[in-house]
Amino acid sequence: MTFVLVAGSTATATIDGISAAGANPDRTYHTPAADLELVTYGRPVFTDVVPMSPTGCPTPAVITRAVRDLLAFETVAIEAGLTVDTAAPIVQVGDQAGADIREAEAVPDARQIFDRARAVGRTFSNDAVSIGESVPGGTTTALGVLRALGEPYGVSSSLPENPLGRKGAVVDTALEASGIAAGEAAEDPLRAVRLVGDPVMPAVMGVAAGAIDTGVDVTLAGGTQMVAVAALLRHLGVDADLALATTVFVDEDTDDLREATDAFGLDLTVTDPGFETTDHVAMQQYCQGEAKEGVGMGGALALAAESDVSMRDVRGQIESVYGNLTDTGGAIDGA
Amino acid sequence: MTFVLVAGSTATATIDGISAAGANPDRTYHTPAADLELVTYGRPVFTDVVPMSPTGCPTPAVITRAVRDLLAFETVAIEAGLTVDTAAPIVQVGDQAGADIREAEAVPDARQIFDRARAVGRTFSNDAVSIGESVPGGTTTALGVLRALGEPYGVSSSLPENPLGRKGAVVDTALEASGIAAGEAAEDPLRAVRLVGDPVMPAVMGVAAGAIDTGVDVTLAGGTQMVAVAALLRHLGVDADLALATTVFVDEDTDDLREATDAFGLDLTVTDPGFETTDHVAMQQYCQGEAKEGVGMGGALALAAESDVSMRDVRGQIESVYGNLTDTGGAIDGA
Repeated sequence: MTFVLVAGSTATATIDGISAAGANPDRTYHTPAADLELVTYGRPVFTDVVPMSPTGCPTPAVITRAVRDLLAFETVAIEAGLTVDTAAPIVQVGDQAGADIREAEAVPDARQIFDRARAVGRTFSNDAVSIGESVPGGTTTALGVLRALGEPYGVSSSLPENPLGRKGAVVDTALEASGIAAGEAAEDPLRAVRLVGDPVMPAVMGVAAGAIDTGVDVTLAGGTQMVAVAALLRHLGVDADLALATTVFVDEDTDDLREATDAFGLDLTVTDPGFETTDHVAMQQYCQGEAKEGVGMGGALALAAESDVSMRDVRGQIESVYGNLTDTGGAIDGA
Repeated sequence: MTFVLVAGSTATATIDGISAAGANPDRTYHTPAADLELVTYGRPVFTDVVPMSPTGCPTPAVITRAVRDLLAFETVAIEAGLTVDTAAPIVQVGDQAGADIREAEAVPDARQIFDRARAVGRTFSNDAVSIGESVPGGTTTALGVLRALGEPYGVSSSLPENPLGRKGAVVDTALEASGIAAGEAAEDPLRAVRLVGDPVMPAVMGVAAGAIDTGVDVTLAGGTQMVAVAALLRHLGVDADLALATTVFVDEDTDDLREATDAFGLDLTVTDPGFETTDHVAMQQYCQGEAKEGVGMGGALALAAESDVSMRDVRGQIESVYGNLTDTGGAIDGA
């Protein structure tokens, strides 16, 4: 099993009230670079802070790292446009952050990113791959491409109160600015990405398509952003088996998750890490509705659930990862 | 054991008659990116050709990959300034190729590269690290920094007839263009790199220094370029144990190799892979004096010699790697 993390940025995350993946909107640009370092090294290296929500909920990278500590799976990090340097080894398939989707074009090089990521996806020699993402603002761009494809499903949020009205208004503006009607990109999913998506989408699509090309099983490790990627792949004509592994927090926040996974033929796994049994700061906010998913958290927890590692061990290791971060100079952002 | 490969480019390689690390001088820019792909994946991915000398000697990356196939060591690739994209996962510590050393400044950001590489070097959790390089033109820049440091030792060459006169003339011009006399940078080795070195040097220095900081044993896997890096580290005041692992081909091409390793306190290992027993195209040119070293070849062969893998197995695997390259669409450059 190879665990792939695709990281990138979009200016869409800096729209007020959209994303909690950073202490403030500008800090969301640091989050993907830091997430990759946390999963790779267990601590910041080039980056200087641990990404936190405005209320102090730490990034799901802490949870993915904890599971990785226990299961020792191989990770491959892919960059699809960062604005902050990372010390994690990355395969670069894109080199610029996405524009605010309210601009005419959000991801001008969507096709090139897809092609390069597909070449990378074809290199995996293990029999299965889980693909996670780190892209603040990604549920808003997910809503954008779902609408451009003509799909009716909703998206989750990293905020306790999902700002669906705000996201819907941004997407309406985005479609208008791009001169595209809802459903108009149903036959051309990379056009949907180019106009109203983010650069992580074509990278995840490409990695998945490349892995499928060589007979590797693909699990999309994430929530509604990965539902949107699955929709893009289906609209592209990819009809291979696809799985979606997410958290109970996304499931509870998304009324139509099962309708969507049924519609796109996704084998759904929802994992509950039992965070309600602890009041540790790195876990309690998830119970209060923050973060919910990201950095492959749902996929990592699904791997833990399949293994002989208990969720008690996972929670203990999350405390340990968090403790190392706060003990050894990792400044905690925002809280 | 972690096997680190540092790749970068310098315009110095395009000076006529300096480097055989590419079918022609301009192709030397492709070589480091392709070398990383060959060691990582066993084939080109984003790049389109296997680097070859003008006479058809394949890159030493083929040999390092073959040993990696047999020993399954972990690799970490570090970029210190490439002009061609690579699909290998890389930690980027520098982002621009070095200038021709006959310009005033060859590596303006030498200090920053060193600092970032040192942070990466501190992340290694294994007890030993071997560090190789891929930087066409690197023996000429090595001669440059040795002179700037006031060290008298010579360098090897990827060409059968070492163009020492040509290199010496380039270095003389380089020192003059940088306004520095021989020996003048003895107290400031990063100045030597900045003025007449290449970007791979401060990256290797930084990785080595960072690994030493955390008690990890360091082997410089290479020939006279790594002697120059050792000299830079000694002039920087690093007095920890350092090993140098190179090939018999470098040893035979370098009269004063042992004088230099003695002077810098390097524990020298010279490995003979027995290529004279085969007339396979991927090995015979080494016997005819080409390539000699690079991409950590000497370090990889030393690891093979220490293991229970025989040199016969290594030679067999080299044939296999080369065969896969020629069978599966890897165009062979130049030959």
